Amino acid sequence: MSITAPRGFRAAATTAGIKPSGAADMALVVNDGPQRHAAAVFTRNKVCAAPVTLSKAAALDGRLDAVVYNSGNANACTGRQGYADAEEMQGAVARSLGLSPQNVACCSTGLIGEPLPMPLVRGGIDALVAGLGPHGAEAARAIMTTDTVPKEVLVEGEGFLLGGMGKGVGMMAPSLATMLVCLTTDAVATPEALDAALRRATACTFDVLDIDGSTSTNDTVLLLSSGASGVRPAQEELDAVVERACRELARAMQADAEGVTKRVSITVAGARSAEEALVAARTVGRDNLVKCAMFGSDPNWGRVLAAVGMAPVEMNPEAISVRFNGHLVCEESTAVPGAREVDLSGPDIAVEIHLGAGEATGTVSTTDLSHAYVEINSAYTT
Amino acid sequence: MSITAPRGFRAAATTAGIKPSGAADMALVVNDGPQRHAAAVFTRNKVCAAPVTLSKAAALDGRLDAVVYNSGNANACTGRQGYADAEEMQGAVARSLGLSPQNVACCSTGLIGEPLPMPLVRGGIDALVAGLGPHGAEAARAIMTTDTVPKEVLVEGEGFLLGGMGKGVGMMAPSLATMLVCLTTDAVATPEALDAALRRATACTFDVLDIDGSTSTNDTVLLLSSGASGVRPAQEELDAVVERACRELARAMQADAEGVTKRVSITVAGARSAEEALVAARTVGRDNLVKCAMFGSDPNWGRVLAAVGMAPVEMNPEAISVRFNGHLVCEESTAVPGAREVDLSGPDIAVEIHLGAGEATGTVSTTDLSHAYVEINSAYTT
Repeated sequence: MSITAPRGFRAAATTAGIKPSGAADMALVVNDGPQRHAAAVFTRNKVCAAPVTLSKAAALDGRLDAVVYNSGNANACTGRQGYADAEEMQGAVARSLGLSPQNVACCSTGLIGEPLPMPLVRGGIDALVAGLGPHGAEAARAIMTTDTVPKEVLVEGEGFLLGGMGKGVGMMAPSLATMLVCLTTDAVATPEALDAALRRATACTFDVLDIDGSTSTNDTVLLLSSGASGVRPAQEELDAVVERACRELARAMQADAEGVTKRVSITVAGARSAEEALVAARTVGRDNLVKCAMFGSDPNWGRVLAAVGMAPVEMNPEAISVRFNGHLVCEESTAVPGAREVDLSGPDIAVEIHLGAGEATGTVSTTDLSHAYVEINSAYTT
Repeated sequence: MSITAPRGFRAAATTAGIKPSGAADMALVVNDGPQRHAAAVFTRNKVCAAPVTLSKAAALDGRLDAVVYNSGNANACTGRQGYADAEEMQGAVARSLGLSPQNVACCSTGLIGEPLPMPLVRGGIDALVAGLGPHGAEAARAIMTTDTVPKEVLVEGEGFLLGGMGKGVGMMAPSLATMLVCLTTDAVATPEALDAALRRATACTFDVLDIDGSTSTNDTVLLLSSGASGVRPAQEELDAVVERACRELARAMQADAEGVTKRVSITVAGARSAEEALVAARTVGRDNLVKCAMFGSDPNWGRVLAAVGMAPVEMNPEAISVRFNGHLVCEESTAVPGAREVDLSGPDIAVEIHLGAGEATGTVSTTDLSHAYVEINSAYTT
């Protein structure tokens, strides 16, 4: 289970000293080819970090040879100095490995608004370059911030492998803390094929993972192919493998979300379109009163109705139904006998809402709102 | 400070037994005239409670003679029976007082999805009718749910009075729990004048109070005039008095919001339009990471930037500035020295954000996200 399982990839991790905890905080991933194709998706936040701007430009031509990571500092909201620091990281890696700087991406995660401690970062890069090898597992640990466990995945295709590592939760629409994902494969694939597979996969995995409605300045998902297997999968197979990897990482992120005590899926059916179903599911998934009820294992379907009633989508307000873990608790927008007795004490809660307006369906994954979430996020910088 | 201070109004409160706590849970307000003009605004939630549907119809002609309130049960998501129950409350009050049912409004607040205990409600109405008098203060107590203090206001105009009571926090865009407000005045005013004053006042008070982004099924704000003072204020004076009363009640609601430890105002300047400024302020005010930072007295301006970056409005991402309690902490989207040392330990936090995109300004009032918020809202029905 590692990004260095597919042929053609090396990785390294080190403790540069950026994190006060003394845990590993830098990682490097190198694609030794023969191909060095890449696809990437980034945060939609207008306020995006220097490494995002830099990596967007680097990935534009569909080629990446290496990616350098640091945790403990997001290099976001750091102005011109921040961009210069990201460029220096990119340049140092390129120089050490004999690569062109524009083929090196850079990802940072951690505190916003603090300048990167560049002397430490420089030392870290030297150590990373010296330590390259089959160290995917160590790299996955080095990119963690408030994650409690590293997140890795390995999927086997027909004659090729796809490995992945991820940290944080959320992306684009979502984001609890920055989400960084690196996927590596030894399949033979054009940049266009990688891009299609990655966009399709993120749309139905990370994009529908919505922990707290906040969106990071740094979210970055990269997919690198070395072609070292010599096997060129059909697009459908590539799509399926990338989606499976993204789905597993998304599930791991949901399970490890800050303060999570419940994994909650919100499915909206009976919507006019798939898009409206998703908008309605997201509205419910972001409602703090619903999220607190989930924390309390409280089958409070009235809050679900109140939340969905504010979604800017077509619905029949007199004909909404709600199920908790398969139990019908609300029909035609009123209580079903025994609704308050449904047991939600387990760690997984499935909420299904039918809007009575059409045939389309959509699902969003979220979590409860717990004391631990408040605790972690009220004492992050202090 | 009471809705019965203006001439022409009587009120009553009683303990019908709807609340398990044994606290007062029903109230009645009667306008004895000579005028009985009224204006009203209601929740924008598509899922709205039976009493909202009923009161909308009652207020449509600009006349209300009486309003009956109950707390402890919202009569929301209660289907046909719920509407029949609201009609019975309206009819019973009308019959007892010799009024036409369509001139009686009905407001409920409390648990969603439970049928009203009508035998208790019937007894309550009898007690209310028998107890009418200068009992505005008692009425203000009887409409409380999770409120810790009753909320009343009294404003003096030139020769007339305007009194008000309110409960809960939020409305329309916002709402933590249901918000109910009743304003009474002995000014002489047409329904049109009342409507103009009320819409203008709610837009800049209750509508920009956003505690948790949730919106109740029951929010109702009523303004009743008896004309008993004989004084007809100019529209501007009426506007000013109504706005002042709404502002004071909104402030009282913010201060008493569920679990509040900080009163937070979010001002966005430098926006392209007042509407965009408000959208951006609301986006920041609803961000759980920002709200947790406020709870922790943490001057984490990076989260403010990350939050505002997701607002669907024009901004210059390189030129955003942030002030906490007047201290510049972020300029040109980067840290100002000493930013992390700003003291936010007091109960009031003013966040000012400049988008660098225009000249317009908007302010939203919100609160922090505390352990107590989670506690109250994870154990509401259980």
